[in-house]
Amino acid sequence: MTMKTQLWTGGRLATLAGDTAWGWVEQGAVLTQGEHILWVGATADLTPELRATVAQTHDLGGAVVTPGLIDCHTHLVYGGQRAREFELRLQGASYEEIAKAGGGIRSSVAATRQATEHQLYAQAAHRLLNLLKEGVTTVEVKSGYGLSQASEAKMLRVARRLAGLGVDVRTTYLGAHALPPEFDGRADEYVQAVCDWLPLLQREGLVDAVDAFCEGIGFTPAQTRKIFEAARAAGLPVKLHAEQLSDQGGSQLAAEFKALSCDHLEYLSAEGVAAMAAAGTVAVLLPGAYYFLRETKLPPVQALREAGVPIAISTDHNPGTSPTLSLLLMLNMACTLFRLTPEEALRGVTVNAARALGLADRGQLAPGQRADFCLWDVEHPNELAYYFGRNPLRQVVRGAKLRG
Amino acid sequence: MTMKTQLWTGGRLATLAGDTAWGWVEQGAVLTQGEHILWVGATADLTPELRATVAQTHDLGGAVVTPGLIDCHTHLVYGGQRAREFELRLQGASYEEIAKAGGGIRSSVAATRQATEHQLYAQAAHRLLNLLKEGVTTVEVKSGYGLSQASEAKMLRVARRLAGLGVDVRTTYLGAHALPPEFDGRADEYVQAVCDWLPLLQREGLVDAVDAFCEGIGFTPAQTRKIFEAARAAGLPVKLHAEQLSDQGGSQLAAEFKALSCDHLEYLSAEGVAAMAAAGTVAVLLPGAYYFLRETKLPPVQALREAGVPIAISTDHNPGTSPTLSLLLMLNMACTLFRLTPEEALRGVTVNAARALGLADRGQLAPGQRADFCLWDVEHPNELAYYFGRNPLRQVVRGAKLRG
Ligand SMILES: [Zn+2]
Ligand SMILES: [Zn+2]
Repeated sequence: MTMKTQLWTGGRLATLAGDTAWGWVEQGAVLTQGEHILWVGATADLTPELRATVAQTHDLGGAVVTPGLIDCHTHLVYGGQRAREFELRLQGASYEEIAKAGGGIRSSVAATRQATEHQLYAQAAHRLLNLLKEGVTTVEVKSGYGLSQASEAKMLRVARRLAGLGVDVRTTYLGAHALPPEFDGRADEYVQAVCDWLPLLQREGLVDAVDAFCEGIGFTPAQTRKIFEAARAAGLPVKLHAEQLSDQGGSQLAAEFKALSCDHLEYLSAEGVAAMAAAGTVAVLLPGAYYFLRETKLPPVQALREAGVPIAISTDHNPGTSPTLSLLLMLNMACTLFRLTPEEALRGVTVNAARALGLADRGQLAPGQRADFCLWDVEHPNELAYYFGRNPLRQVVRGAKLRG
Repeated sequence: MTMKTQLWTGGRLATLAGDTAWGWVEQGAVLTQGEHILWVGATADLTPELRATVAQTHDLGGAVVTPGLIDCHTHLVYGGQRAREFELRLQGASYEEIAKAGGGIRSSVAATRQATEHQLYAQAAHRLLNLLKEGVTTVEVKSGYGLSQASEAKMLRVARRLAGLGVDVRTTYLGAHALPPEFDGRADEYVQAVCDWLPLLQREGLVDAVDAFCEGIGFTPAQTRKIFEAARAAGLPVKLHAEQLSDQGGSQLAAEFKALSCDHLEYLSAEGVAAMAAAGTVAVLLPGAYYFLRETKLPPVQALREAGVPIAISTDHNPGTSPTLSLLLMLNMACTLFRLTPEEALRGVTVNAARALGLADRGQLAPGQRADFCLWDVEHPNELAYYFGRNPLRQVVRGAKLRG
């Protein structure tokens, strides 16, 4: 049953195979076996031998078909939200007043610690459903609002449970997101604790990768190095929140550890670009945070292109700096604000997003890839980036099954 | 039957009555009679006399309830779309190359003229459904891609037909949107034609207001005045696309004609603010176009506030400069980009948007207003502006009927 061969015909395929022209197949078909793709091409090119294996046929109804979308950088699990803080800021409140009213990241940490696992799950599931209805089939979720062993574990368990909603979840341990109040003035000790918790969380099967926030208002490169060394000792890949508000050289450090990705990168230097290119590290650009923070320094997109650094795009969903729940909107923002092309933007939420998660089995419509794909009610995939605030998703197929 | 009295209890009401604090009623109820509101207040304050009149009771289920949303400035009816032009621009194509590939407003004019009324309706209906699913109960639609009497009439008839989707439609005649190719070099003659067509379109019952694009790349103040004089002769109110790319003094001119609204206003002068305030003209801000065009000059929000000019917000949906189909996203953009407060943003798509359309019977939850309201799955209305790319709409009630 699970290895059943199915034929999906009548699609207009943006396979993203190859590097150009959307990997376009005008009258396309996808042959799936079990949860994977066996063959993709023009329907007319399907051989009688392959056709003979087909147990079930589906009509893609003339839809534009893309790989399932991948949101490779989110903080979906946390307690509460920060709409009141947003409102206070716009009313002209000072930072002190906001802090007094319970704003800032520490309010999210307090709410996350206080919440039961069930409460966290309910809130995160509610958020995640917004992403799923736009065609997300794989999502990364970071910890980083618990900042204690128990609370980080709680967040990661909730993240794992989200897979039950019909999506693949990759979990990233971001203990080094912020300094919890009980460690005030003792950042090095906190970093040591974060390193100590790692093997314990890993033993629970909760960690796919390790991340840190390397920034003037976050952790130093030296502290980040300690985290990365702990990850290496645990045999886990690393990622980094790097060069968002200043150039800390975090990207070079991450490249030294063959990081899967460096994320944000507004202040990335030429040296950082070169280091990432040499290490095969993906640049994850986060236009939602750039927009919400009203930043003006653009990430060096042209330099990344020229160096051949793969570019991914993500929501960076989080309550403080990117309360967006639309990956499609990020396509438009990546084009409008960062001047990516629509095809680059789509590759950024498919093939390059997969790479940012270390997943080689998804992100394209090609033999051997997972049979995760989206049917869109558009004439051309460039429309996915052109509109903002529009969801033309018709249907999702995940693991060769229609998602109900 | 249509005058049936219904009681809607268990809501948390953002009535927007009065000028502050969301017109909040924590445990609120709405009493409707026919399609209108008879009474609004705390459930506990409902008198036995009023309660005795109730024929049917509904539970609002603890939802936050706001007035139905009003999108007061759209160009929803046109042929085709311009995603390919968007893509070409991002690929670095020159204006000549884009024009050759069929880009620019003239491509929309050609597609609109070519389309049948049925085709235009199907495309516009598809777009409008995106607005409706976010709680829009009243929408304005402009002509301006036909630019001939027959094609402008066609657009406006399509706009009127959209009301069949379960929304109130106000139509605005924007013949002076652009110069059609057959009038190249003869702008004054075209303006005369636009004026001549007005009474004919009005006789067909197609025009609620008259608008023009007063801009260096549009029509001059003198030409705009001619249009406004024709509107005055026809007894129709006016609106104006004013001071978007430069200060043309259009807002003063519009104020002289007691315009319902001036729209865009990035380059609005202090004199323009004063003139609008004196005339009671609404400032319609369009953050989607500002964002999509990557403009940097902000409209003078603080000056508008201080002068007491009501501020409305709208999508300005159009294929060239604002291909958005989310009015909720405009709330976030109005806050993030223009620094409105969440409450100002919500008033901008309800009470002030109604005023921009000359409608006194909607935009608040108050006695005498239409019973158009939205039920939101949020804890507080500030969340409607805080998130971007999220639709928490639970249900719409329009004319005291649940919209199915
Ligand atoms: Zn992040
Ligand atoms: Zn407009």
